[in-house]
Amino acid sequence: MIQPKAPLGSPDDIEQQFYEAMQQGDIEKLMGVWADEDEIVCVHPGGPRLVGPSAIRASFETMFANGSIDAQPDKVRRLLLPGTAVHHVIERIKVMTEEGPQLAWVIATNVYMKAPQGWRLVLHHASPGLATDMLEIGEAPSTLH
Amino acid sequence: MIQPKAPLGSPDDIEQQFYEAMQQGDIEKLMGVWADEDEIVCVHPGGPRLVGPSAIRASFETMFANGSIDAQPDKVRRLLLPGTAVHHVIERIKVMTEEGPQLAWVIATNVYMKAPQGWRLVLHHASPGLATDMLEIGEAPSTLH
Repeated sequence: MIQPKAPLGSPDDIEQQFYEAMQQGDIEKLMGVWADEDEIVCVHPGGPRLVGPSAIRASFETMFANGSIDAQPDKVRRLLLPGTAVHHVIERIKVMTEEGPQLAWVIATNVYMKAPQGWRLVLHHASPGLATDMLEIGEAPSTLH
Repeated sequence: MIQPKAPLGSPDDIEQQFYEAMQQGDIEKLMGVWADEDEIVCVHPGGPRLVGPSAIRASFETMFANGSIDAQPDKVRRLLLPGTAVHHVIERIKVMTEEGPQLAWVIATNVYMKAPQGWRLVLHHASPGLATDMLEIGEAPSTLH
Protein backbone atom coordinates (compact mmCIF):
# COMPACT_ATOMS: atom_id res chain seq x y z
CA MET A 1 0.00 0.00 0.00
CA ILE A 2 1.27 3.48 -0.77
CA GLN A 3 1.91 5.26 2.50
CA PRO A 4 0.17 8.53 3.36
CA LYS A 5 2.30 11.56 2.59
CA ALA A 6 2.23 14.23 5.26
CA PRO A 7 3.39 17.72 4.33
CA LEU A 8 6.83 18.51 5.65
CA GLY A 9 8.26 21.97 5.89
CA SER A 10 11.88 21.79 4.79
CA PRO A 11 14.60 19.45 3.53
CA ASP A 12 15.95 19.38 7.09
CA ASP A 13 12.55 18.23 8.39
CA ILE A 14 12.35 15.37 5.92
CA GLU A 15 15.96 14.40 6.62
CA GLN A 16 15.13 14.21 10.31
CA GLN A 17 12.12 12.00 9.49
CA PHE A 18 14.34 9.72 7.41
CA TYR A 19 16.85 9.14 10.20
CA GLU A 20 14.13 8.86 12.84
CA ALA A 21 12.44 6.17 10.74
CA MET A 22 15.75 4.26 10.61
CA GLN A 23 16.27 4.66 14.36
CA GLN A 24 12.72 3.44 14.99
CA GLY A 25 12.80 0.68 12.36
CA ASP A 26 9.51 2.10 11.02
CA ILE A 27 9.12 1.02 7.40
CA GLU A 28 5.96 3.03 6.67
CA LYS A 29 7.47 6.22 8.05
CA LEU A 30 10.64 5.52 6.09
CA MET A 31 8.87 4.94 2.79
CA GLY A 32 6.74 8.06 3.39
CA VAL A 33 9.90 10.13 3.18
CA TRP A 34 10.59 9.09 -0.42
CA ALA A 35 9.16 10.76 -3.51
CA ASP A 36 6.55 8.93 -5.56
CA GLU A 37 8.91 8.34 -8.47
CA ASP A 38 9.98 5.17 -10.24
CA GLU A 39 13.51 6.54 -10.61
CA ILE A 40 14.32 7.05 -6.91
CA VAL A 41 17.71 5.51 -6.11
CA CYS A 42 19.17 4.04 -2.93
CA VAL A 43 22.64 2.63 -2.30
CA HIS A 44 23.42 1.11 1.12
CA PRO A 45 27.10 1.02 2.20
CA GLY A 46 28.84 -1.61 0.08
CA GLY A 47 25.53 -2.60 -1.49
CA PRO A 48 24.20 -2.55 -5.04
CA ARG A 49 22.18 0.23 -6.65
CA LEU A 50 18.48 -0.10 -5.89
CA VAL A 51 16.05 1.66 -8.22
CA GLY A 52 12.38 2.28 -7.47
CA PRO A 53 10.16 2.07 -4.37
CA SER A 54 9.71 -1.73 -4.34
CA ALA A 55 13.42 -2.55 -4.36
CA ILE A 56 14.13 0.16 -1.78
CA ARG A 57 11.31 -0.98 0.52
CA ALA A 58 12.49 -4.60 0.33
CA SER A 59 16.03 -3.62 1.30
CA PHE A 60 14.91 -1.65 4.37
CA GLU A 61 12.47 -4.41 5.38
CA THR A 62 15.40 -6.84 5.34
CA MET A 63 17.50 -4.46 7.43
CA PHE A 64 14.70 -3.77 9.92
CA ALA A 65 14.11 -7.52 10.32
CA ASN A 66 17.41 -7.44 12.24
CA GLY A 67 16.37 -4.41 14.31
CA SER A 68 16.39 -0.65 13.91
CA ILE A 69 19.43 1.31 12.72
CA ASP A 70 21.00 3.77 15.13
CA ALA A 71 22.25 6.23 12.49
CA GLN A 72 22.86 9.86 13.45
CA PRO A 73 23.56 12.38 10.68
CA ASP A 74 26.33 14.87 11.38
CA LYS A 75 28.46 17.42 9.52
CA VAL A 76 25.64 18.26 7.11
CA ARG A 77 26.67 20.25 4.02
CA ARG A 78 23.76 21.77 2.14
CA LEU A 79 23.31 22.92 -1.44
CA LEU A 80 19.89 24.48 -1.88
CA LEU A 81 18.93 24.76 -5.54
CA PRO A 82 15.53 25.84 -6.91
CA GLY A 83 13.19 22.98 -5.99
CA THR A 84 16.05 20.66 -5.03
CA ALA A 85 18.20 20.27 -1.94
CA VAL A 86 21.44 18.31 -1.96
CA HIS A 87 22.59 17.30 1.52
CA HIS A 88 25.83 15.58 2.24
CA VAL A 89 26.23 14.04 5.67
CA ILE A 90 28.52 11.88 7.73
CA GLU A 91 26.45 9.23 9.54
CA ARG A 92 27.54 7.85 12.89
CA ILE A 93 26.10 4.37 13.27
CA LYS A 94 26.16 2.47 16.54
CA VAL A 95 26.62 -1.21 15.78
CA MET A 96 26.63 -4.10 18.24
CA THR A 97 29.65 -6.38 17.94
CA GLU A 98 30.95 -9.29 19.99
CA GLU A 99 33.13 -6.75 21.81
CA GLY A 100 30.12 -4.57 22.61
CA PRO A 101 28.75 -1.44 20.90
CA GLN A 102 31.05 0.22 18.39
CA LEU A 103 30.77 3.22 16.09
CA ALA A 104 30.87 2.99 12.31
CA TRP A 105 30.96 5.90 9.88
CA VAL A 106 29.13 6.28 6.62
CA ILE A 107 29.40 9.02 3.96
CA ALA A 108 25.97 9.78 2.53
CA THR A 109 24.47 11.95 -0.19
CA ASN A 110 20.77 12.74 0.22
CA VAL A 111 18.90 14.55 -2.55
CA TYR A 112 15.45 16.02 -1.90
CA MET A 113 12.94 17.47 -4.33
CA LYS A 114 10.07 19.83 -3.66
CA ALA A 115 6.95 17.82 -4.47
CA PRO A 116 3.39 19.17 -4.32
CA GLN A 117 3.06 17.52 -0.88
CA GLY A 118 6.35 18.91 0.41
CA TRP A 119 10.00 17.93 0.27
CA ARG A 120 10.73 14.29 -0.56
CA LEU A 121 13.85 12.14 -0.79
CA VAL A 122 14.79 11.07 -4.32
CA LEU A 123 18.28 9.67 -3.74
CA HIS A 124 20.23 8.20 -0.84
CA HIS A 125 23.77 7.09 -1.66
CA ALA A 126 25.68 5.77 1.34
CA SER A 127 29.20 4.39 1.31
CA PRO A 128 31.59 3.19 4.01
CA GLY A 129 33.51 5.97 5.74
CA LEU A 130 36.20 6.30 8.37
CA ALA A 131 36.38 8.01 11.75
CA THR A 132 38.61 10.60 10.09
CA ASP A 133 35.66 11.65 7.90
CA MET A 134 34.42 13.59 10.91
CA LEU A 135 37.36 15.90 10.28
CA GLU A 136 36.50 18.21 7.43
CA ILE A 137 38.61 18.20 4.30
CA GLY A 138 37.42 21.46 2.93
CA GLU A 139 38.20 24.60 1.15
CA ALA A 140 41.54 26.07 2.09
CA PRO A 141 41.44 29.84 2.57
CA SER A 142 41.36 31.14 -0.97
CA THR A 143 43.36 34.05 -2.30
CA LEU A 144 41.08 34.36 -5.32
CA HIS A 145 38.32 36.39 -3.72
CA MET B 1 43.03 30.57 -11.69
CA ILE B 2 39.34 30.02 -12.26
CA GLN B 3 38.91 28.12 -15.51
CA PRO B 4 36.83 29.50 -18.38
CA LYS B 5 33.28 28.18 -18.37
CA ALA B 6 31.93 27.28 -21.79
CA PRO B 7 28.17 26.93 -22.21
CA LEU B 8 27.04 23.31 -22.37
CA GLY B 9 23.67 22.20 -23.61
CA SER B 10 22.44 19.47 -21.29
CA PRO B 11 23.30 17.46 -18.19
CA ASP B 12 24.34 14.62 -20.54
CA ASP B 13 26.76 16.96 -22.33
CA ILE B 14 28.43 18.05 -19.11
CA GLU B 15 28.58 14.45 -17.87
CA GLN B 16 30.37 13.50 -21.09
CA GLN B 17 32.83 16.38 -20.54
CA PHE B 18 33.46 15.18 -16.99
CA TYR B 19 34.35 11.63 -18.05
CA GLU B 20 36.33 12.83 -21.07
CA ALA B 21 38.37 15.07 -18.78
CA MET B 22 39.12 12.05 -16.57
CA GLN B 23 40.05 9.93 -19.58
CA GLN B 24 42.32 12.70 -20.86
CA GLY B 25 43.75 13.59 -17.44
CA ASP B 26 42.89 17.22 -18.24
CA ILE B 27 42.60 19.14 -14.97
CA GLU B 28 41.39 22.44 -16.49
CA LYS B 29 38.66 20.71 -18.49
CA LEU B 30 37.69 18.73 -15.41
CA MET B 31 37.44 21.76 -13.14
CA GLY B 32 35.46 23.63 -15.82
CA VAL B 33 32.70 21.06 -15.42
CA TRP B 34 32.09 22.00 -11.77
CA ALA B 35 29.81 24.80 -10.57
CA ASP B 36 31.39 27.91 -9.06
CA GLU B 37 30.17 27.11 -5.56
CA ASP B 38 32.03 26.71 -2.29
CA GLU B 39 29.73 23.84 -1.31
CA ILE B 40 30.47 21.48 -4.21
CA VAL B 41 31.21 17.98 -2.90
CA CYS B 42 33.32 15.13 -4.25
CA VAL B 43 33.88 11.66 -2.81
CA HIS B 44 36.28 9.31 -4.59
CA PRO B 45 35.80 5.55 -4.05
CA GLY B 46 36.84 4.76 -0.50
CA GLY B 47 38.04 8.33 -0.01
CA PRO B 48 37.01 11.14 2.32
CA ARG B 49 34.50 13.87 1.60
CA LEU B 50 36.07 16.78 -0.24
CA VAL B 51 34.27 20.13 -0.06
CA GLY B 52 35.00 23.09 -2.32
CA PRO B 53 36.95 23.64 -5.56
CA SER B 54 40.45 23.74 -4.02
CA ALA B 55 40.17 20.38 -2.24
CA ILE B 56 38.55 18.79 -5.31
CA ARG B 57 41.18 20.17 -7.69
CA ALA B 58 44.00 18.94 -5.45
CA SER B 59 42.54 15.41 -5.36
CA PHE B 60 42.27 15.16 -9.15
CA GLU B 61 45.74 16.67 -9.63
CA THR B 62 47.09 13.91 -7.39
CA MET B 63 45.21 11.27 -9.38
CA PHE B 64 46.27 12.68 -12.76
CA ALA B 65 49.91 12.74 -11.59
CA ASN B 66 49.67 8.94 -11.93
CA GLY B 67 48.05 9.14 -15.36
CA SER B 68 44.56 9.60 -16.76
CA ILE B 69 41.55 7.60 -15.54
CA ASP B 70 39.85 5.30 -18.02
CA ALA B 71 36.34 5.59 -16.54
CA GLN B 72 33.32 4.89 -18.75
CA PRO B 73 29.86 5.70 -17.40
CA ASP B 74 27.16 3.13 -18.05
CA LYS B 75 23.63 2.27 -16.91
CA VAL B 76 22.73 5.93 -16.41
CA ARG B 77 19.54 6.58 -14.43
CA ARG B 78 18.25 10.12 -14.69
CA LEU B 79 16.03 12.25 -12.49
CA LEU B 80 15.39 15.59 -14.13
CA LEU B 81 14.03 18.13 -11.64
CA PRO B 82 13.46 21.84 -12.31
CA GLY B 83 16.97 23.30 -12.63
CA THR B 84 18.63 20.15 -11.29
CA ALA B 85 19.55 16.80 -12.80
CA VAL B 86 20.42 13.79 -10.68
CA HIS B 87 22.31 11.11 -12.60
CA HIS B 88 23.23 7.77 -11.18
CA VAL B 89 25.78 5.74 -13.10
CA ILE B 90 27.85 2.61 -12.91
CA GLU B 91 31.43 3.42 -13.96
CA ARG B 92 33.64 0.83 -15.62
CA ILE B 93 37.25 1.67 -14.88
CA LYS B 94 40.16 0.00 -16.62
CA VAL B 95 43.01 -0.35 -14.15
CA MET B 96 46.49 -1.69 -14.81
CA THR B 97 47.55 -4.41 -12.40
CA GLU B 98 50.55 -6.73 -12.25
CA GLU B 99 48.40 -9.29 -14.07
CA GLY B 100 47.61 -6.81 -16.85
CA PRO B 101 44.56 -4.58 -17.41
CA GLN B 102 41.53 -5.36 -15.27
CA LEU B 103 38.07 -3.85 -14.89
CA ALA B 104 36.82 -2.24 -11.69
CA TRP B 105 33.30 -1.01 -11.01
CA VAL B 106 32.23 2.14 -9.25
CA ILE B 107 28.74 3.32 -8.25
CA ALA B 108 28.44 7.07 -8.72
CA THR B 109 25.91 9.81 -8.08
CA ASN B 110 26.37 12.97 -10.14
CA VAL B 111 24.22 16.02 -9.43
CA TYR B 112 24.09 18.90 -11.93
CA MET B 113 22.57 22.35 -11.55
CA LYS B 114 21.49 24.76 -14.25
CA ALA B 115 23.80 27.73 -13.83
CA PRO B 116 23.61 30.94 -15.90
CA GLN B 117 26.47 29.56 -18.05
CA GLY B 118 24.84 26.14 -18.51
CA TRP B 119 24.67 22.88 -16.56
CA ARG B 120 27.38 22.34 -13.98
CA LEU B 121 28.38 19.51 -11.65
CA VAL B 122 27.75 20.21 -7.95
CA LEU B 123 28.26 16.74 -6.49
CA HIS B 124 30.13 13.56 -7.44
CA HIS B 125 29.87 10.73 -4.93
CA ALA B 126 31.63 7.56 -6.04
CA SER B 127 31.90 4.34 -4.07
CA PRO B 128 33.33 0.90 -4.81
CA GLY B 129 30.99 -1.37 -6.76
CA LEU B 130 30.97 -4.93 -8.02
CA ALA B 131 30.68 -6.48 -11.46
CA THR B 132 27.16 -7.51 -10.46
CA ASP B 133 26.19 -3.82 -10.26
CA MET B 134 25.94 -3.94 -14.04
CA LEU B 135 22.85 -6.08 -13.46
CA GLU B 136 19.97 -3.84 -12.53
CA ILE B 137 18.23 -4.29 -9.22
CA GLY B 138 15.14 -2.39 -10.08
CA GLU B 139 11.47 -2.02 -9.70
CA ALA B 140 9.65 -5.34 -9.77
CA PRO B 141 6.46 -5.25 -11.82
CA SER B 142 4.03 -3.52 -9.49
CA THR B 143 0.44 -4.54 -8.88
CA LEU B 144 -0.34 -1.15 -7.40
CA HIS B 145 -0.93 0.75 -10.58
